[in-house]
Amino acid sequence: MVKVGIYGASGYTGQECLRLLLRHSGVEVVAITSRRYAGLSIAAVYPVFSGLTSLVFMDASPHEVADQADVIFLALPHSESMKVAPVFWESGKKVIDLSADFRLRDIGVYESWYGHHVSPQIVPQVVYGVPELYRDEIAKSRFVANPGCYPTSVILGAAPVLKHRLIEAASVIVDSKSGTSGAGREPQVGSLFCEVNEGFKAYKVGGQHRHTPEIEQELSRLAGQEMKISFTPHLLPLDRGILSTIYATLKQEMTGKEMTELYRTFYQEERFVRIYQPGSFPNVAFVKGSNYCDIGVTVDTRTNRLIIVSAIDNLVKGAAGQAIQNMNILCGFPEYTGLEMIALFP
Amino acid sequence: MVKVGIYGASGYTGQECLRLLLRHSGVEVVAITSRRYAGLSIAAVYPVFSGLTSLVFMDASPHEVADQADVIFLALPHSESMKVAPVFWESGKKVIDLSADFRLRDIGVYESWYGHHVSPQIVPQVVYGVPELYRDEIAKSRFVANPGCYPTSVILGAAPVLKHRLIEAASVIVDSKSGTSGAGREPQVGSLFCEVNEGFKAYKVGGQHRHTPEIEQELSRLAGQEMKISFTPHLLPLDRGILSTIYATLKQEMTGKEMTELYRTFYQEERFVRIYQPGSFPNVAFVKGSNYCDIGVTVDTRTNRLIIVSAIDNLVKGAAGQAIQNMNILCGFPEYTGLEMIALFP
Amino acid sequence: MVKVGIYGASGYTGQECLRLLLRHSGVEVVAITSRRYAGLSIAAVYPVFSGLTSLVFMDASPHEVADQADVIFLALPHSESMKVAPVFWESGKKVIDLSADFRLRDIGVYESWYGHHVSPQIVPQVVYGVPELYRDEIAKSRFVANPGCYPTSVILGAAPVLKHRLIEAASVIVDSKSGTSGAGREPQVGSLFCEVNEGFKAYKVGGQHRHTPEIEQELSRLAGQEMKISFTPHLLPLDRGILSTIYATLKQEMTGKEMTELYRTFYQEERFVRIYQPGSFPNVAFVKGSNYCDIGVTVDTRTNRLIIVSAIDNLVKGAAGQAIQNMNILCGFPEYTGLEMIALFP
Amino acid sequence: MVKVGIYGASGYTGQECLRLLLRHSGVEVVAITSRRYAGLSIAAVYPVFSGLTSLVFMDASPHEVADQADVIFLALPHSESMKVAPVFWESGKKVIDLSADFRLRDIGVYESWYGHHVSPQIVPQVVYGVPELYRDEIAKSRFVANPGCYPTSVILGAAPVLKHRLIEAASVIVDSKSGTSGAGREPQVGSLFCEVNEGFKAYKVGGQHRHTPEIEQELSRLAGQEMKISFTPHLLPLDRGILSTIYATLKQEMTGKEMTELYRTFYQEERFVRIYQPGSFPNVAFVKGSNYCDIGVTVDTRTNRLIIVSAIDNLVKGAAGQAIQNMNILCGFPEYTGLEMIALFP
Repeated sequence: MVKVGIYGASGYTGQECLRLLLRHSGVEVVAITSRRYAGLSIAAVYPVFSGLTSLVFMDASPHEVADQADVIFLALPHSESMKVAPVFWESGKKVIDLSADFRLRDIGVYESWYGHHVSPQIVPQVVYGVPELYRDEIAKSRFVANPGCYPTSVILGAAPVLKHRLIEAASVIVDSKSGTSGAGREPQVGSLFCEVNEGFKAYKVGGQHRHTPEIEQELSRLAGQEMKISFTPHLLPLDRGILSTIYATLKQEMTGKEMTELYRTFYQEERFVRIYQPGSFPNVAFVKGSNYCDIGVTVDTRTNRLIIVSAIDNLVKGAAGQAIQNMNILCGFPEYTGLEMIALFP
Repeated sequence: MVKVGIYGASGYTGQECLRLLLRHSGVEVVAITSRRYAGLSIAAVYPVFSGLTSLVFMDASPHEVADQADVIFLALPHSESMKVAPVFWESGKKVIDLSADFRLRDIGVYESWYGHHVSPQIVPQVVYGVPELYRDEIAKSRFVANPGCYPTSVILGAAPVLKHRLIEAASVIVDSKSGTSGAGREPQVGSLFCEVNEGFKAYKVGGQHRHTPEIEQELSRLAGQEMKISFTPHLLPLDRGILSTIYATLKQEMTGKEMTELYRTFYQEERFVRIYQPGSFPNVAFVKGSNYCDIGVTVDTRTNRLIIVSAIDNLVKGAAGQAIQNMNILCGFPEYTGLEMIALFP
Repeated sequence: MVKVGIYGASGYTGQECLRLLLRHSGVEVVAITSRRYAGLSIAAVYPVFSGLTSLVFMDASPHEVADQADVIFLALPHSESMKVAPVFWESGKKVIDLSADFRLRDIGVYESWYGHHVSPQIVPQVVYGVPELYRDEIAKSRFVANPGCYPTSVILGAAPVLKHRLIEAASVIVDSKSGTSGAGREPQVGSLFCEVNEGFKAYKVGGQHRHTPEIEQELSRLAGQEMKISFTPHLLPLDRGILSTIYATLKQEMTGKEMTELYRTFYQEERFVRIYQPGSFPNVAFVKGSNYCDIGVTVDTRTNRLIIVSAIDNLVKGAAGQAIQNMNILCGFPEYTGLEMIALFP
Repeated sequence: MVKVGIYGASGYTGQECLRLLLRHSGVEVVAITSRRYAGLSIAAVYPVFSGLTSLVFMDASPHEVADQADVIFLALPHSESMKVAPVFWESGKKVIDLSADFRLRDIGVYESWYGHHVSPQIVPQVVYGVPELYRDEIAKSRFVANPGCYPTSVILGAAPVLKHRLIEAASVIVDSKSGTSGAGREPQVGSLFCEVNEGFKAYKVGGQHRHTPEIEQELSRLAGQEMKISFTPHLLPLDRGILSTIYATLKQEMTGKEMTELYRTFYQEERFVRIYQPGSFPNVAFVKGSNYCDIGVTVDTRTNRLIIVSAIDNLVKGAAGQAIQNMNILCGFPEYTGLEMIALFP
């Protein structure tokens, strides 16, 4: 059994990692940490775990966790993760970082969006962990930057047409909508039930959201040229799910059917990407609790615009599920191990 | 007191008209019709009206209602409305039609989206009822086509920049999200609680939604040139509200602050349009139950793209409220009479 | 115009008072206070007020507000209200206190549930403000303790059978369910969207909730004998509404129809209490945003048990609406002034 | 591999059976039937199954399914199930019936609540399938009546005190609240999103709900005496979950701690029943998607009343999960096989 530690396990992402890892046939979770809840059992903080595990939150140092575990999930907020990452890196253990701290290759870009970076020396060692695109690189690495939730939905949605150079680089508009679990478990007025329920809003409008440079970095890499996009996130009154509606002008005329075929071919070996039939489009309800990225595409022939709709569960394929997918690659497990959940509907 | 009839009053839109009209100081509702619920009191079908009115649904002919009422609201489905409209028109009474039947000026366009039109002779008499833009025309007419819910949010959102010729005509993308009351009260699987709740999806993707030609007709009129847009509607798991995120490329550079100023000036006399401060954007929760259209604008200077976010309550400003605003104009009441509700929050 | 101040106006209850008072024909709101938001406009904190008022939160002393206003609404948390109440009382102004501080007549009982009481001298001057039951007393007073939300639903639901001595005193069980706005706007984990949404729980089970002594005090007063009840509150994943299901054993046999008749007679003069037909029961959706208390009753003849279902909007009839109803009585306005809202449905 | 057929698989319960069976290590689903959707793949009707199975709905006769399968799940509406049951029974195959048709032992009682029974001869062969209470009987049978959702929550909640004869038989009140998936997938106005969302109501008040005789039959059996209860169901605006709050008068004084201990002992061998610590109570969110029944108990010492709160997922422990638990017993699999899902939170 591979021994796993979750460093910073008390947020929604951390507990989701634990939920999945407890049902993974090849691993044993040996340590979960939390400063706030140190000494409390996970079941006391998240009663869903009652009777399932005797794990207790520890306020452990990175060294202590590195000593116990073969693989470490870092589920800390950005700027916290980079403080402890060097210990884990130097320990020689495998690391999957769910924060934003190691996703941007250009330290200057990182610092203009997030602030000072204290561990820039690790950045060159890091692989950006979209298994569907970078499986081989991940397998050779031992430090994975797990992609952001919005970026995952956009990168998987746009990769086929970017790789095939089918769209005008300057034409991409991403209109994304996320469930509220993406905002985390910190108590704040904006995340209260009565502030979110029966509401819907755009936020960080006009290229203000920190996932913008991450999306641009990865789309540029896929396109082989610099991409600037317009990205507008919105907040949905539901728990789980991201749906991104992506617009781009085609360089040449294509039908929705041809486009669907192209997507099918591109992802034909991928177990976690499902391409919808022409005329059908995903719903976040159809991926809730699962590791799927569902994608539907069409062409608005009147305007020659491609429209891509992609849906994920932000806590699974957008965070914990993808992290475990990366772990499976790092550890040599079949990539889908522990990730075969069927979406919970309704 | 002006006497009002609601023809087809049993849907969400019809009952919302009634809800507002019962609190309007200048009118008396004299007739509500419904074939399905004929003989039942409105309170039996919508208990919110218990103790407030003794109105009973009648299965009355258009002639009977035209005889009793000075103003008629047609709250029928499209293709039903055009069947009865001639009687009301010929009766000389004032008509506000909430269906789509008289919104499109070009019968050919209507028929390609909705099917055969049986009352084309009325179309030339009809005014498209956005009071903020066509107040004077409305005042002179007696048949108003009340705008669709999505179109209202888009037209008010885009009017200032179209009138000022500030955007590239071919660049407009409208990503709209609507609450579920827009789907009406007909029982169908797709509108069930368990199918909508905790879900979010795009539908009629790729220019398939019937509001597309209506939006294009009105944006073209405002722009003084033919407009083709990409319009993607989405279904929100909430009762009331439409939020449209509108993207367009600017012809010239402008800041978000300048744009906000331009919007403020454009709508400075309008009581029901609220322009948000730069950096602030609307939430459908802030207009729920009210007749406001809230708008926030910004410029993504990296891409020179204008982003407009506009929010309405689809049943109020997107239907019944705007209909009463039109009635107020037709009847010479102050335009805001009966429409001063403050949004219900939370 | 009567001048009104709201002391502590930044919570959901305070802003709901403001929402209603701004549309009340007989009053002018002259002051709203908040320590946290001092200097900010109400519209900055609650955008629903944009364009509707220029009121700005002040960090004003009780003396300052008492100088400006004829009537003061205290919308502070319990234990805060009693600190400032004496100033308002001594100023000779009319006071409506929405906290729990002056609802319990027995200081000992208050202190065992809430802690030390610093203004016990005011308690004897206070009237418990259920207008339907104590209208005359309220009219003669100038300090009203506005009832709690749960108690309002229970007292109105049980008053007819208590007054008529129809039930066994020891048999009363109250199973209440409240929307989340009742938990206020303080950021705390338990009120986050993701903690409440798709969830439902009982809390303070076993007579632990502070509304228990308030309910017992008032039921005892109506029954003319000491009542001990079992009261279990639950948290609903919705914004507004309380539904209480009340069980009691009948002393004699009665039918549901007879019971309904008795309730109709008891409340026949009451505009804000609606008794449902036999076999029909309320839904919190039918009172949302309105000042109604809807009640349905039946008798389970197999067990000779009376079952009462009563529904209110916790922020309106359970707080701000009832407060304004009390103000109307205190000030000599018709009791329903400013309170004729029809529930917002859907 | 055991071959399984689902007869009537297109409702929420049927698809939930399939969802769980597809991940069960010991079975293969060989047939799913639906008259309405015959010829369509399950993925076309429930996109959550896209890419996971090639199963297609058949309009097959009971004989055809009995020929193919070793175990049959009947997921039909009541009164339909009893029409096909004899074929399955006579085929010698194992049957788990999720309808109400075979739960009541007394045909007279059945007929007074549901109408004429066409297969009374099977009733004596049937075991009522609460594994925690009747495991041995189930193991010896081959026709299981899977308990109703409400009854499951009540029976497991009340069994310990009934078996120990600790409560007054005439004192039991059950106040239950169910999520909307319990209403099924038939399109009807009352199940529409806009009718359920932001609403909460009691229904079938006064002993009118058909689960009343089922609950009474089973509680009576546990208590060894006839029980009459008051049962009031309510509709929650959420997808999954039943929470029952059960009140009963104790025959003798006990503390909440003693009661908790008694429940712990009673269920100490049970994997799917979790007893909460004194002072803690369940939330339906903590069992969503899992097969647990979570129970918290306390004593209101002021009234000597026991209060039990029990929570299940109505589609899992209240239907499909319990059915598979029964199948596991019938087939000799470990009882928890395929049922180890951790609740999906948030």
